[in-house]
Amino acid sequence: MTHLLGVDIGGTNLRVALANANGEIAGRVSATTTNVRDAESVVRKIGECAHQLLRETNLPLNRIAAIGAGAPGLTNAETGVVIATSYLMGWRDVPLKAMLEHELGIPAYVENDVNLAALGESCFGVGRDCQELVFLAIGTGVGAGIILKNELFQGTAWAAGEIGDMLVPGVSEEPAALGTPGPLEGVVGGEGLRAQWRLHWSMEKTPLSRELAATQIFDAATDGDALANVLLDRAARALAYAISDIALILNTPLFVLGGSVGLHAALRERTQSVVDMYARRQRPKLVLSALGGDAQLMGAIRLAQIGPRR
Amino acid sequence: MTHLLGVDIGGTNLRVALANANGEIAGRVSATTTNVRDAESVVRKIGECAHQLLRETNLPLNRIAAIGAGAPGLTNAETGVVIATSYLMGWRDVPLKAMLEHELGIPAYVENDVNLAALGESCFGVGRDCQELVFLAIGTGVGAGIILKNELFQGTAWAAGEIGDMLVPGVSEEPAALGTPGPLEGVVGGEGLRAQWRLHWSMEKTPLSRELAATQIFDAATDGDALANVLLDRAARALAYAISDIALILNTPLFVLGGSVGLHAALRERTQSVVDMYARRQRPKLVLSALGGDAQLMGAIRLAQIGPRR
Repeated sequence: MTHLLGVDIGGTNLRVALANANGEIAGRVSATTTNVRDAESVVRKIGECAHQLLRETNLPLNRIAAIGAGAPGLTNAETGVVIATSYLMGWRDVPLKAMLEHELGIPAYVENDVNLAALGESCFGVGRDCQELVFLAIGTGVGAGIILKNELFQGTAWAAGEIGDMLVPGVSEEPAALGTPGPLEGVVGGEGLRAQWRLHWSMEKTPLSRELAATQIFDAATDGDALANVLLDRAARALAYAISDIALILNTPLFVLGGSVGLHAALRERTQSVVDMYARRQRPKLVLSALGGDAQLMGAIRLAQIGPRR
Repeated sequence: MTHLLGVDIGGTNLRVALANANGEIAGRVSATTTNVRDAESVVRKIGECAHQLLRETNLPLNRIAAIGAGAPGLTNAETGVVIATSYLMGWRDVPLKAMLEHELGIPAYVENDVNLAALGESCFGVGRDCQELVFLAIGTGVGAGIILKNELFQGTAWAAGEIGDMLVPGVSEEPAALGTPGPLEGVVGGEGLRAQWRLHWSMEKTPLSRELAATQIFDAATDGDALANVLLDRAARALAYAISDIALILNTPLFVLGGSVGLHAALRERTQSVVDMYARRQRPKLVLSALGGDAQLMGAIRLAQIGPRR
């Protein structure tokens, strides 16, 4: 019982890692989840990856203490049921914990993936010296994982940190329908930025393509493109307002930026400068995720170490 | 050791109550704090009030287990030091706990007054069936007390809930100087509303006086005054945005409105209807404080019961 398994279930692929009791990774395997959306198939793939890892590392299954898994949606960490995911996976009330335990025959713990990224950074990343932090996952959408008093804070109905819907100055005040980007996401998230670019694009305004991803827009802004600069400024301002508001409510000193869009250095830099303009008593500090794409996986390993706590 | 003392130190008066071990009030006394601003004088007044209460109820001091006190400012509940109050009192690093213990010779616990109001509502008011709630104190300014997992949440530097500075759509994006109302306060707080009324007032727009308090403006709005209606709508909208944002971050289901401005029924009603427009997964519920002006005092009694917990 000296090793642990961690799983990160993403929209395009799933990744499984094997770690020793200290959380040091001894091996990893990934598999595509394109066209593998239903929970049964995903769990079977996780099982295959896990057994492949055990073979590669010459470990028998009875040396694995537990498996921790991050799910891309609202998750009841106590019962281990994934309540709902986005339209991509379309899961509703999936008993992921029970399914994984049935598949592998070892204890399984599940948690929302952004929460796990926060846990990962807090234990193995930039938050090791910090009792409280907020992890901001900015990819296609925007979400937050919150660590208070050294523990994950999940909220009454497991929905804490759903900040993609936050209303701050400069975002749309039009109520958004379920399944569409929320107000903050519309300005800061990858899907929202891509749509904004398409909306405002014209050949007169920019020589660049009409189809750009968020990180390409940020690169273009850094290179001097005026339209891209407007979008980056707007994103940084809205994100800074959201961070300021969260810091006022929670008094958290540290914000960790992660996700493909959130890891862009130009976004962090501009957002910090707006945050500083508004800081009165406290000055929240923004840092890039130290674990990067591994934050969720390391959180899953940490979850396997400690189990769910509430 | 069967009784408790609770103190609410306000800007215009201080109130002391004596309660039995169950928190039932057996007597109360109040005294003015106008022109009594320095901490030594305030503590002496609290001592006088306490001894008066003991005489009136025929209880010796050794029957009092502890005294709990709410201070109108940033308070370290662990050390019992009031770090800073507003310009009204002007306290800086006042060791209130030690001063009260020296004055009365019994254990003393201190806490921010809005936090105590949240604690009061959570134990004796509308939050009794609820593990998590946010108390919104809307008076001259705006602040929040946060109960998570049945305990006060105070934040890393004791500054959680300083929501008067929150940035939501419709508030000023001008960075505010220390000592002036924050962005949200400027639209929702008593001082801000009074200033807004003065700014927009003209004889053509309204037959009412140029000098109105926030609750008078809300009364006038309910009576059909157009200008007052604009200000009430704006306040309700900004407050609704702040509540929606807090609910997204914390997933708290219940918001308790207190303070002289917050207790106005028309504000609650309009704010709830805006909150409902934006609720996607969850619908935060707004209720008026059941304890009203006693919320902080009851919280102080609760603090004397349980002591500080962190």
